[in-house]
Amino acid sequence: MGKVRVAILGASGYTGAELIRILLNHKKVEIVELVANSNAGQKIEQLYPHLVRYGLPILKKVEEVDFTRIDAVFGCLPHTTSQETFKKLLADSKNSHLKIFDLSADFRLEDPANYQKWYDHEHVAQNLQPQAVYALPEIHRNLIKKSNLIACPGCYPTSALLPLIPLLQNNLIEKTDIIIDSKSGTSGAGRSAKQANLFCEVNESVKAYGIGKHRHIGEIEQELSKAANCELQVDFTPHLLPINRGIISTIYAKINSQFSLKDIKNCLETKYEDEPFVTVIDGEPNIKDVIGTNFCVMAAKEARTANKVIIVSVIDNLCKGASGQAVQNMNIVFGFDERDGLEFSPIFP
Amino acid sequence: MGKVRVAILGASGYTGAELIRILLNHKKVEIVELVANSNAGQKIEQLYPHLVRYGLPILKKVEEVDFTRIDAVFGCLPHTTSQETFKKLLADSKNSHLKIFDLSADFRLEDPANYQKWYDHEHVAQNLQPQAVYALPEIHRNLIKKSNLIACPGCYPTSALLPLIPLLQNNLIEKTDIIIDSKSGTSGAGRSAKQANLFCEVNESVKAYGIGKHRHIGEIEQELSKAANCELQVDFTPHLLPINRGIISTIYAKINSQFSLKDIKNCLETKYEDEPFVTVIDGEPNIKDVIGTNFCVMAAKEARTANKVIIVSVIDNLCKGASGQAVQNMNIVFGFDERDGLEFSPIFP
Amino acid sequence: MGKVRVAILGASGYTGAELIRILLNHKKVEIVELVANSNAGQKIEQLYPHLVRYGLPILKKVEEVDFTRIDAVFGCLPHTTSQETFKKLLADSKNSHLKIFDLSADFRLEDPANYQKWYDHEHVAQNLQPQAVYALPEIHRNLIKKSNLIACPGCYPTSALLPLIPLLQNNLIEKTDIIIDSKSGTSGAGRSAKQANLFCEVNESVKAYGIGKHRHIGEIEQELSKAANCELQVDFTPHLLPINRGIISTIYAKINSQFSLKDIKNCLETKYEDEPFVTVIDGEPNIKDVIGTNFCVMAAKEARTANKVIIVSVIDNLCKGASGQAVQNMNIVFGFDERDGLEFSPIFP
Amino acid sequence: MGKVRVAILGASGYTGAELIRILLNHKKVEIVELVANSNAGQKIEQLYPHLVRYGLPILKKVEEVDFTRIDAVFGCLPHTTSQETFKKLLADSKNSHLKIFDLSADFRLEDPANYQKWYDHEHVAQNLQPQAVYALPEIHRNLIKKSNLIACPGCYPTSALLPLIPLLQNNLIEKTDIIIDSKSGTSGAGRSAKQANLFCEVNESVKAYGIGKHRHIGEIEQELSKAANCELQVDFTPHLLPINRGIISTIYAKINSQFSLKDIKNCLETKYEDEPFVTVIDGEPNIKDVIGTNFCVMAAKEARTANKVIIVSVIDNLCKGASGQAVQNMNIVFGFDERDGLEFSPIFP
Repeated sequence: MGKVRVAILGASGYTGAELIRILLNHKKVEIVELVANSNAGQKIEQLYPHLVRYGLPILKKVEEVDFTRIDAVFGCLPHTTSQETFKKLLADSKNSHLKIFDLSADFRLEDPANYQKWYDHEHVAQNLQPQAVYALPEIHRNLIKKSNLIACPGCYPTSALLPLIPLLQNNLIEKTDIIIDSKSGTSGAGRSAKQANLFCEVNESVKAYGIGKHRHIGEIEQELSKAANCELQVDFTPHLLPINRGIISTIYAKINSQFSLKDIKNCLETKYEDEPFVTVIDGEPNIKDVIGTNFCVMAAKEARTANKVIIVSVIDNLCKGASGQAVQNMNIVFGFDERDGLEFSPIFP
Repeated sequence: MGKVRVAILGASGYTGAELIRILLNHKKVEIVELVANSNAGQKIEQLYPHLVRYGLPILKKVEEVDFTRIDAVFGCLPHTTSQETFKKLLADSKNSHLKIFDLSADFRLEDPANYQKWYDHEHVAQNLQPQAVYALPEIHRNLIKKSNLIACPGCYPTSALLPLIPLLQNNLIEKTDIIIDSKSGTSGAGRSAKQANLFCEVNESVKAYGIGKHRHIGEIEQELSKAANCELQVDFTPHLLPINRGIISTIYAKINSQFSLKDIKNCLETKYEDEPFVTVIDGEPNIKDVIGTNFCVMAAKEARTANKVIIVSVIDNLCKGASGQAVQNMNIVFGFDERDGLEFSPIFP
Repeated sequence: MGKVRVAILGASGYTGAELIRILLNHKKVEIVELVANSNAGQKIEQLYPHLVRYGLPILKKVEEVDFTRIDAVFGCLPHTTSQETFKKLLADSKNSHLKIFDLSADFRLEDPANYQKWYDHEHVAQNLQPQAVYALPEIHRNLIKKSNLIACPGCYPTSALLPLIPLLQNNLIEKTDIIIDSKSGTSGAGRSAKQANLFCEVNESVKAYGIGKHRHIGEIEQELSKAANCELQVDFTPHLLPINRGIISTIYAKINSQFSLKDIKNCLETKYEDEPFVTVIDGEPNIKDVIGTNFCVMAAKEARTANKVIIVSVIDNLCKGASGQAVQNMNIVFGFDERDGLEFSPIFP
Repeated sequence: MGKVRVAILGASGYTGAELIRILLNHKKVEIVELVANSNAGQKIEQLYPHLVRYGLPILKKVEEVDFTRIDAVFGCLPHTTSQETFKKLLADSKNSHLKIFDLSADFRLEDPANYQKWYDHEHVAQNLQPQAVYALPEIHRNLIKKSNLIACPGCYPTSALLPLIPLLQNNLIEKTDIIIDSKSGTSGAGRSAKQANLFCEVNESVKAYGIGKHRHIGEIEQELSKAANCELQVDFTPHLLPINRGIISTIYAKINSQFSLKDIKNCLETKYEDEPFVTVIDGEPNIKDVIGTNFCVMAAKEARTANKVIIVSVIDNLCKGASGQAVQNMNIVFGFDERDGLEFSPIFP
């Protein structure tokens, strides 16, 4: 079989550049098209000088691409743009063979009303939504294999769901009073020029933002509710960190009365012992442990107060939290080893 | 009246240097002695080149200092060293006039058994402990005025106690399920050479540490229990940030059933409206808002889940969290305006 | 005499905010007007939350200000805007009393043709240029005293001219082969939202820019040529650093044959021994030594090759390189102690 | 043929960890022994938690290793320790088959008197020095192929020699007045706990150090003198940057009278057009362009003054400046493709 022929839509953003970094290292993939509407006609190295030596395709507008020559499409577009683009693309039956890996939020929420609520925008591709699968590989592997429309999870949700889903599925923690205090590197804010993301505004500071109402709450609650088999709500507070990459989530939960910290640890270790990208440790997870990789490292620790657990998890927001996880999903869909193209060890220091 | 004659013990550390920065700006104080046992005989600018132009006294050993010529002593010593030093100093009745402002943890815990528990070390100056006052100026101003032994609060506790004490005193929040998720700049770790605090270990990373058992829990619980008028426990998780200065604490608490977020806000605004160093805002506190100052900025925000509040507070750990607060306490003891020497506005950016 | 009544034009930028920080600490000055055309009607704390507690005036458009009530105007405007604004302002004879401290490049180059060359823009206020004085206080103090239009030097030029001017004036170094390799914090790039200045673009990187043609070459050469009493040219390479504040300039020059490194050091020490803001040290200047201050710290060091000297100088680009120097100039013009409002010691760490 | 069996001496330092990162990605190599005398008996993940999941060998003392089972040894030891270790190792004829890749400075200087001068220490393995080859792959490839003792160049020298050697070999630049102003990330200072390298000392600052006398001058002058075919001296000033990885060197040189900038560019482009790791660009090299890779990116730019060139080059000090270049040399010695194990693209952002 030939290589998987890939198009990246939205190649000019950080998740696009990260996809290129990963796929250049993937032996079974060929990057055939790079789409960046407002930079069409340029070389990628005009936007990203570090990509100068790879002979990558010229940036195009989406309408210039012949998708019949493409096998897999990665969507690195802003939300709303993503749903519009894929709606148009899939309206043409010639494109029905495409495997779509969408990194935007547009296909993550199963209920369009929920999408409307969190994104304050009517979903315009509601016909596609039923085909989409929320795609956390360690949780939804079997559904992913069968899907053509892969909704890759958000970065914060990935860091929170990996530890919490197995604990809720196994009824080890209570469904209330789950608190997720997350801190993310600034690449999560993307590459568009905003004053709030200037070096001097972010450096030597940390702030909480979107307190009580960040959009990622929608997908976190959706997936945790499925795991718990009942509707639940969580408190989630994101913070902006003066680092390029990385998320650390500190999670507080109540242990159900018949269980102990040991049960929590056992559950996580059992769930993830054969997973190539998730490691449960005894120590203190550090963002440095995962930079540049598709890893999630987590630990469950004893709380000060009785019957609580504090779980810390770390990921690289651009890799396991975005482009790396998208490639992991692609590997699942195409039947490859999930590690293909993702066998980086962390950059340290 | 002449200037207050000050000695700084432990002038070689970051809190010592910060005290010098502040007191050089204080019109009613003269820095008379700088003590740094292992650097005695050196000039302070050999340790801190930025202090080259101030004609500061040569560093001495503590036994070389004639404390009868001193009015106020700032203790910037490690815990255990601090109690030993002040025990010896005050054993000499010639020194009983001294006003002592201790920045270590040694006199913060009222119960020596509690000290033993958290610091794993028997308290050797138990005779002095009853004279000490835990000295958060906005809370304990009247006690501070009358005391000679001022136990300045820890950095993390300052950020957590300022919002929580008035809420507990007024019975607005529940005594259980208080979670304090704090993040601190690296200057909190001091200037001693440890691998874990090297630039390359800290930069581009964040980790949680001391999860469930950090020593600051002791004083936080002591003061919150007094405010609540009952023994309580909290969950407190500190994180190490790749910034020089600053703490942000994100605090989760349950609102008592008859109250609302509005009551929480009113309580904090009322408590702090006339305080020169504490500001309650509607927006999102940012560490940048307080760098280089003695300010605490806080906001109470609506949580996602019902009947909860999320409070964010920021301070400069070296200033309001240590040396600035010590000078504020000195101003109280000597009857000065609390703002004397502390009227910096924030360094931005 | 009452306080000097100040208006700041361009208060929304970093140099405007830095002026506010300094002037809030200046006992002989009152900030009467803050002008920021595109933010007129807003409070300054909407742009700079750290300025929340100072009761500063509402932002206005320049045409809303009655300048007859103002004594001193600080111009923190972009170049070209600055000349247009002051041309219009001074065209009205009611405003002829104003002392103007311009932080832009617009009045620094004495020859309008030179301005045209470096800024690619015709100077529209050529009638004002003859009244302007290039205002490095340690060099041009006497001229500054008598002027109404003070052209405050650029940040890079300040760091280079302070060591080089006395050496050229005393003929200690050659007029050729002067190389200035400068590195600046990102606040020098201002607060406008540009992709190149985003946190993720600047952090963990350094680049040279404007190699061989940066606009500051114009004023450096102008002032060095005056000092050398002949036309000279220099090589100047600026670099962008991932820090908020600070410039370090590493300068290479040839010692004239009859002189030695000792003569160089003597010259600098003699020149600056009574200056409150310039310190010549034996050690290695570090940007940390001057952060938040109006200081310049410099050292002359032995080179590897014969008859060369390597001089390192550091300043805070926003303070001595911009707003602090402007206040120092204001102090000169109004006959105050030059240190008034500028007696901060460095923030360390 | 089986895999190359590798031992890493000094695995506990940053260059050791970087070698592990690279070799884990090298299909033709097996890491058989990790030596770290003072941590012997520990697992590498106790020192480097990010290496938790690789099943790497337990750390040993050097005397516990059976080198007859090893093909290639990487020396990541401090200078002087390195020469002592390899002297002892090679004194045993059983070990004469070993290919040694030394990352220390110990075998870089051909003349032991020169070593004594720069390192202030008598060379104790002078019998080995004649076998050693200074190993910049792009320059000394043919010598490297035939050698058993590969002296890998220093980080700063790599960044300076790659552009300067071809220009001197082709007589395009003058042999005097070469100035190398270099700036390095802090990982170059290693992992030992020194106050000067603490986060708070390095962050938000830059300093020059070792001005006029840094030890890397020795090897830079040795190699440039060979290229120029005459003894020459250079001025080299290193600076410490608040970033983890990366070096940028800004180089000033005089173009020989019959040549132009175009000739300089042509020379560099011709020399490096087929090199897999060196890229000559027209733009402005940025440290970000090479982070995590074995690349060197350089550009020759027009100076302001006549007949000068300004060359900027960037490398990752831990990779092309140390461990990556060592692996490139290993690939040469073992006849592999030079890119094996080194095909990372840059981490951006």
